[in-house]
Amino acid sequence: MTLGADTHAFYSDNTASIAPELLAALAAANVGPQKAYGDDPWTLQLDSVFSQFFATEVRAFVVSTGTAANALSLATLAPPYGNVFAHAGAHVVEDECGAVEFFSAGARLSLIAGDHGRMDPQALEAALAAHPASVHTVQPAAVTLTQATELGTSYRPQQIAVLSAIAHRHGLAVHMDGARLANAIDFLDCHPADVTWRAGVDVLSFGATKNGALAAEAVVFFDPARVRDFELRRKRAGHLLSKSRYAAAQLLAYVQAGVWRAHASRANRLTQRIAAAAGPRLAHPVEANELFVTLGTAVKSALRAQGFGFYDWGAASGPEARFVVSWDQAPASVEALCQAFKALPAA
Amino acid sequence: MTLGADTHAFYSDNTASIAPELLAALAAANVGPQKAYGDDPWTLQLDSVFSQFFATEVRAFVVSTGTAANALSLATLAPPYGNVFAHAGAHVVEDECGAVEFFSAGARLSLIAGDHGRMDPQALEAALAAHPASVHTVQPAAVTLTQATELGTSYRPQQIAVLSAIAHRHGLAVHMDGARLANAIDFLDCHPADVTWRAGVDVLSFGATKNGALAAEAVVFFDPARVRDFELRRKRAGHLLSKSRYAAAQLLAYVQAGVWRAHASRANRLTQRIAAAAGPRLAHPVEANELFVTLGTAVKSALRAQGFGFYDWGAASGPEARFVVSWDQAPASVEALCQAFKALPAA
Amino acid sequence: MTLGADTHAFYSDNTASIAPELLAALAAANVGPQKAYGDDPWTLQLDSVFSQFFATEVRAFVVSTGTAANALSLATLAPPYGNVFAHAGAHVVEDECGAVEFFSAGARLSLIAGDHGRMDPQALEAALAAHPASVHTVQPAAVTLTQATELGTSYRPQQIAVLSAIAHRHGLAVHMDGARLANAIDFLDCHPADVTWRAGVDVLSFGATKNGALAAEAVVFFDPARVRDFELRRKRAGHLLSKSRYAAAQLLAYVQAGVWRAHASRANRLTQRIAAAAGPRLAHPVEANELFVTLGTAVKSALRAQGFGFYDWGAASGPEARFVVSWDQAPASVEALCQAFKALPAA
Amino acid sequence: MTLGADTHAFYSDNTASIAPELLAALAAANVGPQKAYGDDPWTLQLDSVFSQFFATEVRAFVVSTGTAANALSLATLAPPYGNVFAHAGAHVVEDECGAVEFFSAGARLSLIAGDHGRMDPQALEAALAAHPASVHTVQPAAVTLTQATELGTSYRPQQIAVLSAIAHRHGLAVHMDGARLANAIDFLDCHPADVTWRAGVDVLSFGATKNGALAAEAVVFFDPARVRDFELRRKRAGHLLSKSRYAAAQLLAYVQAGVWRAHASRANRLTQRIAAAAGPRLAHPVEANELFVTLGTAVKSALRAQGFGFYDWGAASGPEARFVVSWDQAPASVEALCQAFKALPAA
Repeated sequence: MTLGADTHAFYSDNTASIAPELLAALAAANVGPQKAYGDDPWTLQLDSVFSQFFATEVRAFVVSTGTAANALSLATLAPPYGNVFAHAGAHVVEDECGAVEFFSAGARLSLIAGDHGRMDPQALEAALAAHPASVHTVQPAAVTLTQATELGTSYRPQQIAVLSAIAHRHGLAVHMDGARLANAIDFLDCHPADVTWRAGVDVLSFGATKNGALAAEAVVFFDPARVRDFELRRKRAGHLLSKSRYAAAQLLAYVQAGVWRAHASRANRLTQRIAAAAGPRLAHPVEANELFVTLGTAVKSALRAQGFGFYDWGAASGPEARFVVSWDQAPASVEALCQAFKALPAA
Repeated sequence: MTLGADTHAFYSDNTASIAPELLAALAAANVGPQKAYGDDPWTLQLDSVFSQFFATEVRAFVVSTGTAANALSLATLAPPYGNVFAHAGAHVVEDECGAVEFFSAGARLSLIAGDHGRMDPQALEAALAAHPASVHTVQPAAVTLTQATELGTSYRPQQIAVLSAIAHRHGLAVHMDGARLANAIDFLDCHPADVTWRAGVDVLSFGATKNGALAAEAVVFFDPARVRDFELRRKRAGHLLSKSRYAAAQLLAYVQAGVWRAHASRANRLTQRIAAAAGPRLAHPVEANELFVTLGTAVKSALRAQGFGFYDWGAASGPEARFVVSWDQAPASVEALCQAFKALPAA
Repeated sequence: MTLGADTHAFYSDNTASIAPELLAALAAANVGPQKAYGDDPWTLQLDSVFSQFFATEVRAFVVSTGTAANALSLATLAPPYGNVFAHAGAHVVEDECGAVEFFSAGARLSLIAGDHGRMDPQALEAALAAHPASVHTVQPAAVTLTQATELGTSYRPQQIAVLSAIAHRHGLAVHMDGARLANAIDFLDCHPADVTWRAGVDVLSFGATKNGALAAEAVVFFDPARVRDFELRRKRAGHLLSKSRYAAAQLLAYVQAGVWRAHASRANRLTQRIAAAAGPRLAHPVEANELFVTLGTAVKSALRAQGFGFYDWGAASGPEARFVVSWDQAPASVEALCQAFKALPAA
Repeated sequence: MTLGADTHAFYSDNTASIAPELLAALAAANVGPQKAYGDDPWTLQLDSVFSQFFATEVRAFVVSTGTAANALSLATLAPPYGNVFAHAGAHVVEDECGAVEFFSAGARLSLIAGDHGRMDPQALEAALAAHPASVHTVQPAAVTLTQATELGTSYRPQQIAVLSAIAHRHGLAVHMDGARLANAIDFLDCHPADVTWRAGVDVLSFGATKNGALAAEAVVFFDPARVRDFELRRKRAGHLLSKSRYAAAQLLAYVQAGVWRAHASRANRLTQRIAAAAGPRLAHPVEANELFVTLGTAVKSALRAQGFGFYDWGAASGPEARFVVSWDQAPASVEALCQAFKALPAA
C-alpha cells in the first residue's frame, strides 16, 4: 500500500481509507428520500444506541470533523471570557488553527504541562489555585483532556478521575477529546464508561474518522443541560448536516457492530509489534496506535530512502519521528518497519 | 418512495439520497491510504477541473455544507464591521442561524427587497446611495445573490450583471449562493460562466448536496486574492476535512461527468410538469425545481390527507405551500401531484 | 455661542459642554489616591443612590459611552445566536457601527417599524409570532426600546408596558436605550420608575453625557441575575475605568442634586418654543429636545447661510432637517431660530 | 494621604488622582459647544502634536483605557486566526480579561519567557522558528512589548530593536504597551523616538492615565496603513468618545507642557529612594516607578500593621510584595517606607 512516493506510509491515521463495514453502512442508508437535518431514523437512534454503549443516558450528536467536535463542545462549556485548560501539546492547542477561540468568541487556552502527553494533576491544581478570583482575568471554565493523548499514551481511568475531581472542585467542566478513544479503550481493556462519565467527563468528542469512518464524529453529552446551546451553535457553524443519516449510519455501525474495537485493536496490536522492534528508542510508552521514536536525522533520512513515510516530531533537525498505525495499515509495511528498526545499531 | 408517513414527499431536495454516480465516485476513491487535508489526487484536481468547467482560472475548495460555504465566503469578503446586502428572503438570512454573523465576527446583513426572490437593483442602489459614509455605521462590503432564488426563480445573466455592477461601483464584492446553481443553469440553458464571473460574481458557493452529493459543496474563487484567508478560516471553523478525497471525488464526478446537469435537468422537467398542472395557483415563475402554490388551508389539509408531504410557506394558517422536486423524485409522486392539482377547483 | 463657523449650532447634544455642577462634582472627587476600578467611595454608592432614584433595588454600573452601555447590556441579554428587536431607526441600528453584533459575538438586530420613532406593538407581535421555532434561525432574545426616541418622541409608560408585555410573553428581555431618558421623563412629568421597571424594562442604559456629563453613562440592572456576566464583559471590552470615581461622582450629582431634571427641563422648554415657531412644518410630535422640520433644500440652504448649524435628516437632497437643543444651548440661538422659522412662508 | 484604612498606600498608580495641570487643561476645554466625535480643535491637533513629540509623522487617537488601547491596537495587527507573542507576565495576558481575544475575534496570545519582565529575544526567535508554516495552526501576526515592563524594568532601545528585528524578519508587526512609557523614557533619559519607532515599534499604546490623566490614553500609529480599520473598530467598541475634546486636551497638555516628564520623573526619583532602602531585597532592577521586594509573610504583615498598603506579588503566602509609586505619592509615605525598609533585619 503506497501513499504518494512512499512504499510504507505511517504519516497519520487521517490518511486511512473508509472501513468496509462503515462504507457498507453508509451505502445501506442510501434508500431514497429521508427527512433532513437529523430527523431521519438513523440519527434519531443515536441517543439510545450511545446511551447503551456508555451504559448511561446520553445525548449524542453528529459532526463531520474532530475540530468541530472539540470546539463546539468547549464553546458550550466556556463563556467568551472563559479559560480552558489543556495539555500544552493538545490537538486543540497545536492543530486546530484557533478553533476553540473562534467558536467560543475568544476564550483562552491555558497550557498545562505533563509527561508523555498526560496533564499533570499537580500542575493543573497549581494553575487553578493560583488563578486570581477577579474581574481582571479570564475565568476558569473547563479542562480538556485528550484520550489517547497526542503522544500515544492513554490515561488510566483513575488518572482521569483525579483530573476531573480537581476541575469539578474548582467549578470547571471536563471535556474529553476522544479522537482516538477507541484505541485507548482497547489498550486499557476497560468499559467505555470507565474513561468517560465514570471518571468525571461531562462532554466527549468521540472520534470515528481516524478509525475508519468518513467524516463522522460524535459529540456526547453526559449532562443534557447544555444540549440546546450546542445544537444552535452547531447549526450556526455550518455543522448540522442536511444528510445527517449517512454519518449517523456509520456511527451506529461503529458502536453497535464492534467496528470501533476491531479496528482499534488491530492497529494497537501492530503498533505493539513495532514498539517491540523499536525498543529503547521509544520516547513514550506505547499505549495506542502511535509511536514516537528517537532516531536522529541520519536514521530518519535512511528510513525515508527505504520508502518509509512519517513525520518529524518537533524540528526536522531534531532526532524524533512519529509513526502512526492506521486501521488499514498494510501488514507488509508493519513487518518492514519492524525489520528496519531491528536492523538499527543499538541506540 | 415514502418519507415517514408520507407517500409523496416534496419537502426539500435536502431529503434526497446520494446519486449513484456520486456514491460510485466516493467508493472509487476508497483505495487505501491517501494524504490528508486535501493533498490527495482528487482534491488537487479541483482547481483545474473547475477552471475548465467555468472557462476561466479559479481556485476551488471543498466544504461539507452550504451554510459553511456561504458564511466562509462572506467572512472573507466582509470585515467584522462590514455590511452584507442580501435579499430579504435569502437562505443566509432565514435559514442559517446567523452563520454569516458568526463567521465574520459580527458583520451585518441588510435586507433588500425584490419580487419573486430576486434582489431589486433599484432597491440595492438606493440602499447603497443612502448609506452614510461615516465611521458611525457598518461599512458596505458585499452583496450576496442566490441562484436559483429561494422562491424558485432564476436570475438572467444580465440581471446578475446589473446587480454586480452596482455592487462593484460602490466598492462591494459579489457572492453567489449557488445551492441550486445547477438547476438555474439548466433552466437558463447557459454556460456556467454566464451566471457567475462573466456576470460579475467574485466568489461562488456551488452546491452539489441538494442535487445528489453527500455533504459536498464547492467554494469557487474567481479572484484568488482572498484564498489564503479563506483556507485559514475554513480550518479554524472545522471545515477542512481530513478525508477530503471523498468529497472531492464527488465534486469531480459532478462536473466532469455531467451529473450536475443530468439530475438538475430531470428535476426541472418534473417541476415544469407540476407547474403546468398548478396553473394559475403558482405564486412565482417556476424556473428551477421549486414551486410555490397558493392553495388555502383546506386544500393543504386535503392534500396532506392524500399522502402528500410539503411545507407551508409562511404561516401554517396562510394559503401558500412549497413543493420541492428532488433529483431522485419518484415519477409516480410527480404524477400523483399533477393529478391532484388538476383535480382542484379553479382558483 | 459658536461651533466652528456656525453662529447658532443645533447639531447635537453631543456637542454640549460639561455642566458646571458635574464638572464641580468631578473636581471634588480629585482628593488624592483612591482605590481603583470602582472600589472607591463614589462608585460604591451607585447601587444605593440609583436604587433610591428608581424606587427599587437596582445594580448600577459606570461606562463611558452610550454605545458601550447599549452593546454591553444587550450582550448580556442575547446569546451569539440571539435575535434583538429594535426600531428600524434606533441608534443601535444606525449609529453604533455594529457594536451590538460585536459585543454579542454576532447576535442579529431585526428591525421593527413604527411611527414617529416608536416601535409598533402590532409589528413586534407579528414579528415574534412569525418567528419559526427552529434550530435553523436566530433565536429571539431581547427587545430594545429608545426613550426618548431617535425622532424626539417619548413613549408613554403604558406604551412601554405593552411592548414589554409582548416581549416577556415570548420570553424576551427588555432593554431601554435611555441616552435621552432625562428629557423623556421631564416631558412626561413621571417618576423614573414609570418608564423603566414598572413598565417592564429589565436593563437600562441611562445616559448622562448628552445632558451635561463628561463620558458618564449608567447601566442599570433591575434584575441582578446577569450582573456578573456584565462585569466581565465590561472589563474585557476595556470599559472598566481605573479612575471610576470621576464618572461615578458625576452620576451621583446627576441624580442626587436634580441636575438631570434641571438641564433636561431647560432644553425641553427651549425646544417647545422652537416647536411653536416651526408649527405645521414639524414632522413628528416634539416630546424631548429634538425637532424634525420639513423645510426643503432651499430653506435649509438659506438657514445655513444665516449661520444656523444642523444636520439633514435623510438625504441632503431631501426636505427634512434635525435640530437638537442641548442643555447649554444659548438662548439667543433659540430666539434666532424661532424668528427664522416664523419668517418662513407658510409650508 | 490615606487610601481607605491605609496610611501609606502603594497599591497602584491607578489609584492616583488627576494631575492639576491636566485637570486644568480639561476644564479649559469646557468652552461651550464643540463638534463631537473628535472633530473638535483639541482632537484635531493630536496628529501634529504627537508627530512633533515623536519626531516623525504619526496618527494619534484617543481612547479612555489602556485595555482598549492595547486590544484595539492588536486587533488591527492580528487577524482572528492570528498569534500574538507577549511576555508571560504582560498586562494583556494577566490583567485584561481576554480583551485581545475579544477585540481580535479570537487571536491567540502565546507566552514568551524572559527575565525581569523583558521578553527574551532567543525565546522569541525560537518560538517563531519552531512555528509550523501550516494551515493547521494560528498564524504569527504580532509581538507586543511592555515599556516599562510589568516588573518595573525598562527595555533599552537596543533591546527593543533586537526584538523588533526578529518580529519583522518573520513578518510580524510590533506593538508596544506603553502604560508607563513616560517612566521608562525618564529612566532611560532618551528621546521618545528611541524606544518606539526608531527601535521598530509599529503601533503604540501611550498611557497617560497612570501618570496623572483622567481616562486618557493615546494610540499612536507610526504606519498609517491600518488607521481606518482602527477607527472603525474603536467606534464599534464604544471607544469613540463624543466629547473627545476633554481627553484630547489632557493629552495635548501631557506632551506639550512636559507634564508627562515632570510627573514620571518625580515618581521615578521617589522610587529610587525606596529602592536604595530596600537594597538586596529587591527582586528586579528598579527602572521605573515600581518595586518588587522579597519580604516574607511575617514582614508583609508587620508592614501592613504599620499602615502600609501594597499588593502581594504572586501568592499571598509567598514572600514577594509590589510597591508602586504614583505621580502624587505623598513624600511622607515614601519617607516612612524607606525607614521601614531600613529597619528590617538583613535579608
